[in-house]
Amino acid sequence: MDYLGEIESLKNQLSFSETIKDTDYDQIVIAGMGGSGIAGKIFQELYTEKPVRLVEDYRIPKFVNKNTLFIAVSYSGTTEETLSAATQAKRQGAHLVTISSGQQLSKLGHQNIILPNSSLQPRAAVGYLLVPLLRSFKISTERELNLAYRSIAGLDKNSEECKKHAAKISAEKKIPVIYSGAPFKSVAYRWKTQMNENAKVICYANYFPELNHNDTVALAKTYRKDLFYFLVLESDYPEIRKRVELTASITNTEFHVIKAKGKSVTERLFYLIHFGDYLSYHLGKLRGVDPGDVTLVNEIKKGLVKNDYSPQTRL
Amino acid sequence: MDYLGEIESLKNQLSFSETIKDTDYDQIVIAGMGGSGIAGKIFQELYTEKPVRLVEDYRIPKFVNKNTLFIAVSYSGTTEETLSAATQAKRQGAHLVTISSGQQLSKLGHQNIILPNSSLQPRAAVGYLLVPLLRSFKISTERELNLAYRSIAGLDKNSEECKKHAAKISAEKKIPVIYSGAPFKSVAYRWKTQMNENAKVICYANYFPELNHNDTVALAKTYRKDLFYFLVLESDYPEIRKRVELTASITNTEFHVIKAKGKSVTERLFYLIHFGDYLSYHLGKLRGVDPGDVTLVNEIKKGLVKNDYSPQTRL
Repeated sequence: MDYLGEIESLKNQLSFSETIKDTDYDQIVIAGMGGSGIAGKIFQELYTEKPVRLVEDYRIPKFVNKNTLFIAVSYSGTTEETLSAATQAKRQGAHLVTISSGQQLSKLGHQNIILPNSSLQPRAAVGYLLVPLLRSFKISTERELNLAYRSIAGLDKNSEECKKHAAKISAEKKIPVIYSGAPFKSVAYRWKTQMNENAKVICYANYFPELNHNDTVALAKTYRKDLFYFLVLESDYPEIRKRVELTASITNTEFHVIKAKGKSVTERLFYLIHFGDYLSYHLGKLRGVDPGDVTLVNEIKKGLVKNDYSPQTRL
Repeated sequence: MDYLGEIESLKNQLSFSETIKDTDYDQIVIAGMGGSGIAGKIFQELYTEKPVRLVEDYRIPKFVNKNTLFIAVSYSGTTEETLSAATQAKRQGAHLVTISSGQQLSKLGHQNIILPNSSLQPRAAVGYLLVPLLRSFKISTERELNLAYRSIAGLDKNSEECKKHAAKISAEKKIPVIYSGAPFKSVAYRWKTQMNENAKVICYANYFPELNHNDTVALAKTYRKDLFYFLVLESDYPEIRKRVELTASITNTEFHVIKAKGKSVTERLFYLIHFGDYLSYHLGKLRGVDPGDVTLVNEIKKGLVKNDYSPQTRL
C-alpha cells in the first residue's frame, strides 16, 4: 500500500473492536511518543471522568502503583521511551495494557492489544491506536463511530478548500501555524506533527483561550508575520469562537478557519484529523518531498543505539 | 517600579512563605492562564507523587470532587477562565485554594493565599505564584530556595551570552524556537511566552524526546530554516543531552545551548527562568518595543465583556 493508501485506510480502522478489559482503576497514565502519542493526547482531552496523566518520556510519575491503569501505546512496539516507561510501570505495580502492532511492547502487558496491520506508518494508524480508547472508556458509541466512517469517507481529498490552503502555503513558502480550542486542542498538535512529517515544514500549534495570554501580543507586533499562515480549527464552544474573531480583528491577522463536520464530537474529531492528513500530504507533494518518508526519525534512533543510550540498562 | 525592576524582584519573591495548609487529597487540579498558568505547568512537571491535572480553560474535568485539591492561580484575581474554573470546582465539592493578589478570586477559596504585591505584571510575579507550590509540596527546601536567590542575584542581566543571543535574533529578525528536556520542559514554554509578551515576537517551544518524532523531520528538510534561531535549555538527563547532539548533527541545525547553573533542580529552574526573562527583555528593547506593555491582552478581555461573553452566566 502506498502512503496515500495508508492515510485513506483510516476509515476502516474505526471498526477495530478490541477493548481494554479492566478499566476499574483510580487513575490512568498513558505513555506514547509522536504518531502513537497523539492517541493519548486526544484521549486525555476527551476523557475527564478520572485523572489522566500523559508520559512522553523515559521516566514515569512516582504515584504510579497498583491502583493505576497504565496504557503504553507504540505502533511499532519498539519505541525506546515507551518501552522504558512500560517497564517501570510494571515494576511499580501498575496494571499494564499495551497497544501496538507487536514486537517487544506486546510481550510486556497484563493485556496486550495487537493491531491487525503492522505495515503502516505509525501516524497513519491513528484510528487503530485511538479507537480502543474511545470504545473502552465509552467516549464514542458504535453509532458515532459508524457516522465518523461516513464523515471521513465523504471527505474529498481533492476538495478545493484543502488544495487551496496547501497551494497558498507552498507557493509563498509559508510557515503554517495551527490554532484550535476545546474539544480539539490536541488535534492542533496532530496537525503540527503531520505538517512536520508529511510536508517536512516547521509548524507550530497553540490553542485558545491560552494563546490570548501570549501569542496575541506577538500577533499584533511581531516582525515577519507575513511568513506565517494561520489555520484555525473551529472550537465547539461559543466563547472560544468569539475569541477567535476578536483576536483576528484586534491583531489584524488573517485566520483561515477549518470547520469541523458531523453531529458528534467523534465525527468532528475524525473529520478534522483526516482533513489535516490530506492538507499536509498535498503540501508535501507540492513541495516535491515524499510525504511517506521519515527515515530521519529512525536515524536518531540508530544514533542512540550505537552510542548505547538504551534506557533499560540505565533507569 | 519600572518593568525591569519588576523582573529583578524575582529573587526577593523566593522568600514568600505562605503555604497550602491541607494537601491531603487524592489528586490535584491546578487552574491558571498565561503568566499565572506557568506556575501550574512547572508544578505539574516537578511534582509526581500524585496525579496533577492542569486546567487552562473555562471548564474543569468531571472527576473533580471532594477528594480533589483544586488550586486556582491568577495574579490579578480577575482572569475569567480561572474564575469560571474555580466556581465550578467549588460546585463539584473540591477543596479550593486560591493564589492571587486579591480581587474576586481571593473571595472564593476555602483558603486564599494573597500575594504581598499587587502592582506587578503577572509574568513578573512567577516567584510569588510558584514558591507556595514548591514549599507546600516539599519540592524545594528552604536551603535550595536560599541558594536559588544567590543564583538569580548573581545572574548578570548584561552578560555577554544573554546580549549576544538577543542581538543576533534582533539583527536578523529571527523567529526564536525554544527546545528543552526534563525537568525543564515547562521552562521552554515560559521562554516562549516571555518572547511573545516582552519581545513581541512569534516564538514556539517544544521538548525532547517528543520533538525527535516530528520536528526533527522538518529541521532537516523545511524551507526558511535560516529564519529561525534555536535556543536549547539543557536537560538534566544524559540521554536527552545525547539526543540534542544527535539532532543538531543529523539535521545540520545550529543549536544555541543554554546551560543551567546551580546544584539543585530549584536553583537551575530559577536560573533558566530568569535568563529567559532577561533575554526576552533585551530583545524587546533592541526591537524598540516596550517589554512591559501588554495592553493587547486586556483588549481581548474587554472585547469579551462588551459582548457579554462572561462565562459565569453561561456555564
